[in-house]
Amino acid sequence: MKQDRYAVILGNLGNTCDRFCSSYKTKLETLEMLKQAAAIPAVTGIELVGTWDIRTENVKEMATALKDLGLQTVSIIPDLFANRTFWKGAFTSREIAIRREAIDYTKRMCDVACELQCPVINIWPGQDGYDYLLTADYERERGWETEAVREIAISYPNLRFALEYKPKEPRTHSYMARMADTLLLAGETDCENVGVTIDTGHAFVGGEVVAESIVLARRAGNKLFHMHFNDNFTAWDDDMIVGTTHSVAFVEMLFWLDRCEYDGWLSMDQYPYREDAAGAIGESIQWIIKFNAIQREHRDRIEELLQIGDPVATSRFLREVL
Amino acid sequence: MKQDRYAVILGNLGNTCDRFCSSYKTKLETLEMLKQAAAIPAVTGIELVGTWDIRTENVKEMATALKDLGLQTVSIIPDLFANRTFWKGAFTSREIAIRREAIDYTKRMCDVACELQCPVINIWPGQDGYDYLLTADYERERGWETEAVREIAISYPNLRFALEYKPKEPRTHSYMARMADTLLLAGETDCENVGVTIDTGHAFVGGEVVAESIVLARRAGNKLFHMHFNDNFTAWDDDMIVGTTHSVAFVEMLFWLDRCEYDGWLSMDQYPYREDAAGAIGESIQWIIKFNAIQREHRDRIEELLQIGDPVATSRFLREVL
Amino acid sequence: MKQDRYAVILGNLGNTCDRFCSSYKTKLETLEMLKQAAAIPAVTGIELVGTWDIRTENVKEMATALKDLGLQTVSIIPDLFANRTFWKGAFTSREIAIRREAIDYTKRMCDVACELQCPVINIWPGQDGYDYLLTADYERERGWETEAVREIAISYPNLRFALEYKPKEPRTHSYMARMADTLLLAGETDCENVGVTIDTGHAFVGGEVVAESIVLARRAGNKLFHMHFNDNFTAWDDDMIVGTTHSVAFVEMLFWLDRCEYDGWLSMDQYPYREDAAGAIGESIQWIIKFNAIQREHRDRIEELLQIGDPVATSRFLREVL
Amino acid sequence: MKQDRYAVILGNLGNTCDRFCSSYKTKLETLEMLKQAAAIPAVTGIELVGTWDIRTENVKEMATALKDLGLQTVSIIPDLFANRTFWKGAFTSREIAIRREAIDYTKRMCDVACELQCPVINIWPGQDGYDYLLTADYERERGWETEAVREIAISYPNLRFALEYKPKEPRTHSYMARMADTLLLAGETDCENVGVTIDTGHAFVGGEVVAESIVLARRAGNKLFHMHFNDNFTAWDDDMIVGTTHSVAFVEMLFWLDRCEYDGWLSMDQYPYREDAAGAIGESIQWIIKFNAIQREHRDRIEELLQIGDPVATSRFLREVL
Repeated sequence: MKQDRYAVILGNLGNTCDRFCSSYKTKLETLEMLKQAAAIPAVTGIELVGTWDIRTENVKEMATALKDLGLQTVSIIPDLFANRTFWKGAFTSREIAIRREAIDYTKRMCDVACELQCPVINIWPGQDGYDYLLTADYERERGWETEAVREIAISYPNLRFALEYKPKEPRTHSYMARMADTLLLAGETDCENVGVTIDTGHAFVGGEVVAESIVLARRAGNKLFHMHFNDNFTAWDDDMIVGTTHSVAFVEMLFWLDRCEYDGWLSMDQYPYREDAAGAIGESIQWIIKFNAIQREHRDRIEELLQIGDPVATSRFLREVL
Repeated sequence: MKQDRYAVILGNLGNTCDRFCSSYKTKLETLEMLKQAAAIPAVTGIELVGTWDIRTENVKEMATALKDLGLQTVSIIPDLFANRTFWKGAFTSREIAIRREAIDYTKRMCDVACELQCPVINIWPGQDGYDYLLTADYERERGWETEAVREIAISYPNLRFALEYKPKEPRTHSYMARMADTLLLAGETDCENVGVTIDTGHAFVGGEVVAESIVLARRAGNKLFHMHFNDNFTAWDDDMIVGTTHSVAFVEMLFWLDRCEYDGWLSMDQYPYREDAAGAIGESIQWIIKFNAIQREHRDRIEELLQIGDPVATSRFLREVL
Repeated sequence: MKQDRYAVILGNLGNTCDRFCSSYKTKLETLEMLKQAAAIPAVTGIELVGTWDIRTENVKEMATALKDLGLQTVSIIPDLFANRTFWKGAFTSREIAIRREAIDYTKRMCDVACELQCPVINIWPGQDGYDYLLTADYERERGWETEAVREIAISYPNLRFALEYKPKEPRTHSYMARMADTLLLAGETDCENVGVTIDTGHAFVGGEVVAESIVLARRAGNKLFHMHFNDNFTAWDDDMIVGTTHSVAFVEMLFWLDRCEYDGWLSMDQYPYREDAAGAIGESIQWIIKFNAIQREHRDRIEELLQIGDPVATSRFLREVL
Repeated sequence: MKQDRYAVILGNLGNTCDRFCSSYKTKLETLEMLKQAAAIPAVTGIELVGTWDIRTENVKEMATALKDLGLQTVSIIPDLFANRTFWKGAFTSREIAIRREAIDYTKRMCDVACELQCPVINIWPGQDGYDYLLTADYERERGWETEAVREIAISYPNLRFALEYKPKEPRTHSYMARMADTLLLAGETDCENVGVTIDTGHAFVGGEVVAESIVLARRAGNKLFHMHFNDNFTAWDDDMIVGTTHSVAFVEMLFWLDRCEYDGWLSMDQYPYREDAAGAIGESIQWIIKFNAIQREHRDRIEELLQIGDPVATSRFLREVL
């Protein structure tokens, strides 16, 4: 059985807010968050958000801290969503100078990644999208998005670029919305090192069966580069603890991750507004461990269920193992 | 611990179709369906659809068949949805003669119920609603709906009338759409014997947390008269096997059924398009038995979880028991 | 024809943020926002958010400013959603001291309202709800919610309390979620001066046809006290310009406001993340003026369309007038 | 200005039903439906459903009837959804003989198309999908789907194959669900004559902004082969009259059809359950004519609005022209 590797996005351990309340918790120092992350059972990897957690100036310091805590840097996530500069788009801003800044900034984060021996840049261009109908030139802006990703990916052939899709928020519509359109965009870049990140909650909001999305990525040429885990009520990116609303869906997707030979990290991406962050993240990991044990113990039986396609048999199986 | 009573709607065992394909299975004789129902483990009750299963002419015959099979009639569901007469509304038809026929027909079903010693009339006025904006006088039609229910309920004070809500289908919008609006309508009738049926799938489609809907009915004066069980993907009334998509929601609602002292039947209402019907219904019952065992074994702990309101603790509990 | 009165929530003109980006615009002084509001064509009323805009200390100052600008105070909205004190609930907090503070604070806002001759307290208890299944005692908390509203409403018999429902956000589930459940709660308080606010966007998210919700409030005893206008894509409270996604729905609801003799204010409640605020609010008002002109010019024909219930005729009408 | 060509699917004029009621209207003879179609203003094209409307045996007869009525055959839609043979999948059935039959049957329909000089085969494999999680081998079945389309497309290089996607119904999940995944599948066939049909209602249910989907097809190599028009409330394929719920979305998509140089037919695909069919279809066409006139009159201004991206300006424009 393969060795699962668990990670967490560092910022998950920090303060939370929403558009009404500017602070639900208290601000924590980066080192304190790192320590909390390292203390979560099974966590050995960290994802760092650019600018917030990692900058050109603090790479060495961060590298030391991570080494001391036994943590690997799994990905760097350039901040293309919280920086006000990109408020009306980063790679798809109408202003050429902003688009250039988004590309250059992402490249600086690539340099940081190289220095940290981090293999993956997780690109979530949250502000690249639109809010109202008849306010965007979809053709031109998709072109800009594609070209930007391509320029960056070509410049850093040793890094892998994982595009994280999400149907909406902060814009009412994102350009990278679901697995299939993101695969099309990745394909248009014609770069082998451009693939996709599945955030399970984003996929649920997009109406996807995540297992099928995993297969889509497989068929497009092993394009699943990274996984973010969380749960929600399917209507919005609630960023909740894995397993608290979905369960069969997680068993199924973990089965397909194995079958499609996914060998990336299993990283937690939550937003514990009012909960103990470390506790909430730790719970998600324990649910994944549990679901993974179930599907691995019963691989042959699951394969058989998929072949026969009888919902009654599948239900009986699930009743036994869940 | 209270004795759970399981039932099934007879028609669930029959043929299935959709608007594209007129027949997925084969038509079964009523007696054959009754035998299949009686053979499903734990089933001791039957719901009969008016006209389809039960008519003035076949009451005695049906009573004998049911007795022979050891089945009780749990409810009668007047056919206010499949009869073309009511194609543009039953109690809310624009034609007074149709409204009268809907009322008179329902009363005939009440007579049948009395003869069968069936305590509940389950009213699902599927055609009472509207399809397009600006095509219905909501005030007038809601008035008709209320008056019709009231007239019938007053005429049969010994029967209980359980109004089954559903947000849509066959109309794009139903008048009895969710728990709260149906309680308002029940309240307007001013009849003690008018209450509500929860169909779990209808409630999911309506965006309800079923446990909370149970509490709403409780606060309105013990108005939960009946329960229909099935599961779906929350966007449509897929009428699937319980537990195949939702699980925590069922544990929670069964907890609240007990806490609110629900003492009606647990009846299965599915639509197994392509599945073995008896198998699919039997599965639902086994899931409910499983979920009920879990919540009853851990009542005190669940009560405690509700008091403290900590999602991390709830998650930990669910991981242990599911 | 009745005289429509237009208002705006003052904070709509201020800075915006979301959980990712803490500031999309710049902070404005209250007086500056007031001036901008007064300059929007047709605006003669203002809604003030408690604490943010209005406090015991600045009532006189605000009264003078409003008078100078010719603005009436339409409602006061106690801040039960942005204040971190209420982060896990205001009227439904598990802590008795917090619940008391929520009530006492709201009463202080009632005093302020009286001083400003403001007739309505708009109560949106955004934090009263829950995020995860099996973490809330719905019965107990709904009881607290009801008792709190009742205590306040009894204390201020000359004020009207308009309960603003919303299915979710900031919690994944709110206690006051839709029109019908809020009417049930209002009914439980047994106070004539407790009614409901429709926020059109909240209603869309709740899957409501707003016109029908207006009728529900009418039937419950003229319980529609206040209206907030905005538009969205129906899945989330996008707080957009009226008319940019829905149009028929607005024509219909304005027709029903007239028919149900609504005589409150038409107030704008938007969240123009990246747009010019005054422009976006002004647009909404102009759309409403346009839609209102249409429905009033064609009242008789609309009445007739509702009586005949023919979607083809309704479509033909809409093509002509829209 | 280009010449728009309007068509209708013949079956839209026939009887309607749903899973509850087996017949809302009366069955019409094919010739009668053809006459009704020809009488709808602007209609010059017809889509025929295989087996129902067109079979090897009646091709000549149909050709004559169409010629007499001045109608062109726009597409043939093989019946892969109502035929019970394909109840658990057509191209993705687990039974090899069924998959073969689905392919062979579709080829027979291709022969019929050639004989009728019909240029497009509209493939909607409604039964190709799955209902429950953990009951389908997505990888294998997607492979079958792709191979089947490829085999057929290669055999008929002079026909164009337009794949019609739909997220669900009759299955809870379809394999061709949205524009992007269908483009991926079309790309996998590596056939120039395989493209996509947009059914506007299916796209709404899939959460798509249709205009953006048009752009996706454009970028994938002019892959938009066909258009089906109807409207709905976005949650389900209600198959309603165009323009009765959406309006801005239609203006926008018609703009983009022009800009992307779509030169196929504008075909109506509705399901007028309780409405006069010819009237409902005629209304949709009149709405499209109206929306098209608006967008064409204001092309330059719309282009400008897309460039500036200001929702307030877009709103102002829409208020003027709608």
